[in-house]
Amino acid sequence: MTQSHLPETIVGILQELKSSEKEFLALHEPSFQMNEWNYVKECLDTGWVSSVGKYVDQFESMLQEYTGAKRAVAVVNGTAALHISLLLVGVQANDEVLIPSLTFIATANAVSYCGAIPHFVDSQERTLGLDSGKLSSYLEEIAVVRPEGCFNKHTGRRIKAVVPMHTFGHPIELDTLLEVCERYQIELVEDAAESLGSYYKGKHTGNWGKVSALSFNGNKIITTGGGGAILTNDQKLGEMAKHLTTTAKIKHQWAFIHDQVGYNYRLPNINAALGCAQMESLSFFVEQKRRLAERYKDVFAKIPGVTFFTEPPFAKSNYWLNAILLDEAMTCYRDELLEVSNKAGVMTRPVWSLLHELPMYKQCPKMDLSVALSLEKRIVNIPSSSFLGERSC
Amino acid sequence: MTQSHLPETIVGILQELKSSEKEFLALHEPSFQMNEWNYVKECLDTGWVSSVGKYVDQFESMLQEYTGAKRAVAVVNGTAALHISLLLVGVQANDEVLIPSLTFIATANAVSYCGAIPHFVDSQERTLGLDSGKLSSYLEEIAVVRPEGCFNKHTGRRIKAVVPMHTFGHPIELDTLLEVCERYQIELVEDAAESLGSYYKGKHTGNWGKVSALSFNGNKIITTGGGGAILTNDQKLGEMAKHLTTTAKIKHQWAFIHDQVGYNYRLPNINAALGCAQMESLSFFVEQKRRLAERYKDVFAKIPGVTFFTEPPFAKSNYWLNAILLDEAMTCYRDELLEVSNKAGVMTRPVWSLLHELPMYKQCPKMDLSVALSLEKRIVNIPSSSFLGERSC
Repeated sequence: MTQSHLPETIVGILQELKSSEKEFLALHEPSFQMNEWNYVKECLDTGWVSSVGKYVDQFESMLQEYTGAKRAVAVVNGTAALHISLLLVGVQANDEVLIPSLTFIATANAVSYCGAIPHFVDSQERTLGLDSGKLSSYLEEIAVVRPEGCFNKHTGRRIKAVVPMHTFGHPIELDTLLEVCERYQIELVEDAAESLGSYYKGKHTGNWGKVSALSFNGNKIITTGGGGAILTNDQKLGEMAKHLTTTAKIKHQWAFIHDQVGYNYRLPNINAALGCAQMESLSFFVEQKRRLAERYKDVFAKIPGVTFFTEPPFAKSNYWLNAILLDEAMTCYRDELLEVSNKAGVMTRPVWSLLHELPMYKQCPKMDLSVALSLEKRIVNIPSSSFLGERSC
Repeated sequence: MTQSHLPETIVGILQELKSSEKEFLALHEPSFQMNEWNYVKECLDTGWVSSVGKYVDQFESMLQEYTGAKRAVAVVNGTAALHISLLLVGVQANDEVLIPSLTFIATANAVSYCGAIPHFVDSQERTLGLDSGKLSSYLEEIAVVRPEGCFNKHTGRRIKAVVPMHTFGHPIELDTLLEVCERYQIELVEDAAESLGSYYKGKHTGNWGKVSALSFNGNKIITTGGGGAILTNDQKLGEMAKHLTTTAKIKHQWAFIHDQVGYNYRLPNINAALGCAQMESLSFFVEQKRRLAERYKDVFAKIPGVTFFTEPPFAKSNYWLNAILLDEAMTCYRDELLEVSNKAGVMTRPVWSLLHELPMYKQCPKMDLSVALSLEKRIVNIPSSSFLGERSC
């Protein structure tokens, strides 16, 4: 194989997962094969589709049981979960919040909704997530800890929190980051939008920070149509999460009293019903996705110029979205690969544009981002629907 | 009847709508009797439950056709619709936005999300909505128009917009307000959360301001579980509404480029599916609700001390949520009425606490609010589910 055949070679591998010539392989399709219709139909039959109904409580309990978090609060989407998580750890207007540049736009937008400023951190090739070691060295240079918290010496602003994102479901190195957080008095909020079903050193992601955010968008490992959740092991923060996401209304038999500016972020019961049924299949989805990843690992091992991304040694990952990394010398073939594969009915996509390069975040503070810049050119996501795990047995 | 029997008399009237002793009469229950099951099941069968799928487009078209607005953009709830509507007319941090004190908390919260300040306006007994005449006199005192817009002489802040809410579905007097808006260069955003199916002088509410917001929460005349929409007759604003509510992502075959801070406010396809089926029943719901209102009007006409609220002369209302107004002398019986009726399985509720009295909005500017203060003590909402219209034939 000459290198110029790389796109065709990769597309050929992916096409083997198709069950027919005509099938379109999406990047990630949901599977509804259990109680989804039963539960949703029950909502319609009883009329409980909206803010009242049993499925929201049940969904929260199931999330708690699965993740081990003491409290889960279901919300309308992952962005809302991130927004409230930041408020819960005390992020205020004009604070800085450390986030990777290589993440979905929601991480930065949630910071903006608080009136705070994203401060971009580099990523690590081994995890695709925030590089805790590099962050540590960087903070030594630019940060100073005072009784009121950690401050950026250059901007004078408080650095209140750090929001690592577990990219494609792969946990970042949390131990190092927890040390950094303690040393610099920075709050840890995990963006676990992609990592339901993923464990760091045997404990579920989203349990390591003070609060964390999950997402159940249509392309996630489980979906509620649109939805998300806040996880925390602090019961008081959990109560506050519920309060803030339900318009900060004080419980009363009939009166409408709200004690602060709150949000209409509650998850409707009909979406939670879908979530309950999906949670029943989650362990199965993780198994299937890990099986698909095994197959990808084997076949890509034989292809020079490209590496299939595997979980870091300290993690058990949900392999939510599979990714290959092109060698630096192969990045010139990326766009051709994207074009050829999508034309052939095999959906692939590049990673997100780096956030520090978008117009609204161009002026934000940042460290050296050389690894993120390299990864951006090299990552290509490939079909990851859980049912493809069956075909790869 | 002595006046002290007023609560029992009212509860007696309401109980006649029960079909059995044991039935609980909710304030407002949705009805799913048409294609709700079919459309929702189709979403599950095809896997299109989330951000992609035909029902969002279809729901938006149906809303356009019904309301006559050129563009409807479906969003995750009415609060989100209000938030984006305010951004679309140019509300910025530190602006003042005129809103009634007698409205649901979302109106004020949406102003807060923009970093702007609610400025509370009194209500009119004939409409239960913002008093345009009183606002006009008030602005003569406190406002000054400069080339950059209208300013509050006392606070120095710009008064950018006014957000009347069509309370319980009854349209406010829009002609007077439009004159005020033009004279003072203030943008009109209608909070039409409660008034889908209501017309002012023959034209649907939500068509009079530059943009407006609808809600499809579980208790509304139609429901999507949770949902809302932005209406506008300005195609450019409509495009911008869609852009801002879908993370401000620029259309591209695969790249993730966002050109400003956007929001994750899109309505999931599964909720839109429910909305499509509900829209098919909307005209029927309005008929049923108007029939129920006719019955209430007749029976309450015979009860001294209380008035059933009827649509203003210039309006055709959806009678979303029926309300009775106690005479001033009868307000001492309000809490007893609420207690007796709810105990008897007939749900009633008072109106919202006035927003200018809540802790987070206490310091906001306000005009004399004597009518709102009176209405707050006198309004009691009574069961309004559309199917009760059948029982009142």
